[in-house]
Amino acid sequence: MRGFLIVGNKAVTKPFSLKDLAGSAGRMDIICRCIAQALFISHGIRRDVEVYVLLLGEPDPPKALKIVGSEVRYMAPDERNIGGIIRKALSLKVDYSWKRSTPGVYIARKNLIDLLEELSKKYNVVYLREDGVDIRDVACRLENPLFVLGDHIGLREEDEKTVMKYAKIVVSVSKLSLQADQCIVIVHYELDRC
Amino acid sequence: MRGFLIVGNKAVTKPFSLKDLAGSAGRMDIICRCIAQALFISHGIRRDVEVYVLLLGEPDPPKALKIVGSEVRYMAPDERNIGGIIRKALSLKVDYSWKRSTPGVYIARKNLIDLLEELSKKYNVVYLREDGVDIRDVACRLENPLFVLGDHIGLREEDEKTVMKYAKIVVSVSKLSLQADQCIVIVHYELDRC
Repeated sequence: MRGFLIVGNKAVTKPFSLKDLAGSAGRMDIICRCIAQALFISHGIRRDVEVYVLLLGEPDPPKALKIVGSEVRYMAPDERNIGGIIRKALSLKVDYSWKRSTPGVYIARKNLIDLLEELSKKYNVVYLREDGVDIRDVACRLENPLFVLGDHIGLREEDEKTVMKYAKIVVSVSKLSLQADQCIVIVHYELDRC
Repeated sequence: MRGFLIVGNKAVTKPFSLKDLAGSAGRMDIICRCIAQALFISHGIRRDVEVYVLLLGEPDPPKALKIVGSEVRYMAPDERNIGGIIRKALSLKVDYSWKRSTPGVYIARKNLIDLLEELSKKYNVVYLREDGVDIRDVACRLENPLFVLGDHIGLREEDEKTVMKYAKIVVSVSKLSLQADQCIVIVHYELDRC
């Protein structure tokens, strides 16, 4: 299994306009692209992938999404389609256990610690940061990795401290500062080559 | 310089609805993602990149777009923003020379041969196809490469023959069949490491 956990610092926690994913929805466009790049290949979905998203924007944070590649149906890789799926999940009343919204898509009231407690039982947490070890040197040794990465803002200092308590390793995918979804493509690429 | 030429087999050649990039606009979502991944890094644009797009959809094909990284302003990486920029270019009356639409964005009436004749003077044409040589073995030897790739359909047989007349090399980025924009991310990644 491969897992990804994306932290959306501003991503809103109520239904939003699909016309303004990058604005009033709190850079939900980034979240949509991350989900697409984690799940899709050409004409297919990676069934061995799970994507988790932590939504920290107003008005009702935190909320978490879980997208299970092996269960997903009726999803297309464009931002608007994935945005619509997230919006639908955000229309549900949440509690602390995962609630199914559409096939393969779940939502719950969870914060970063909740998520890492749950996920570190089945995954080895890998923190993606520019100053980490070169992914090329370690990709083929990563078993059941969960890659944690931030949106355009990165991770807040307190969240980074939390992640570092769970992370087995800090890994870098480029000396350039890349967009989160680009990091995901590169992670898949290096792991696919193993 | 790095160039990319993306062939949009169904991408429409008139202004389209931003609500339906993936449908009635002829998979314009793929074109938008390719442009974004070719140009953007985190909080910046790659100034040494040019992107060319061949639009072959109805009602008025062929049309070609040129996007010059060193000149681009007011562009964001989300599909809707780039879709709006393409739509604006498609509202212009075109002829055989490049006409500027917005900063760094040009449009003209050109077919695949026109484009390759023009671009092969300044670039070495590289055709991206799954059965090519491994990009990792050749990335650092590619000078001024222009990477040619198709959308979800790939290249039509006759277009592939045309490209092969100009291509110096056929290169593969993965044994998996990836999406066009994912191929672009990987190309940049391998070239950035050189």
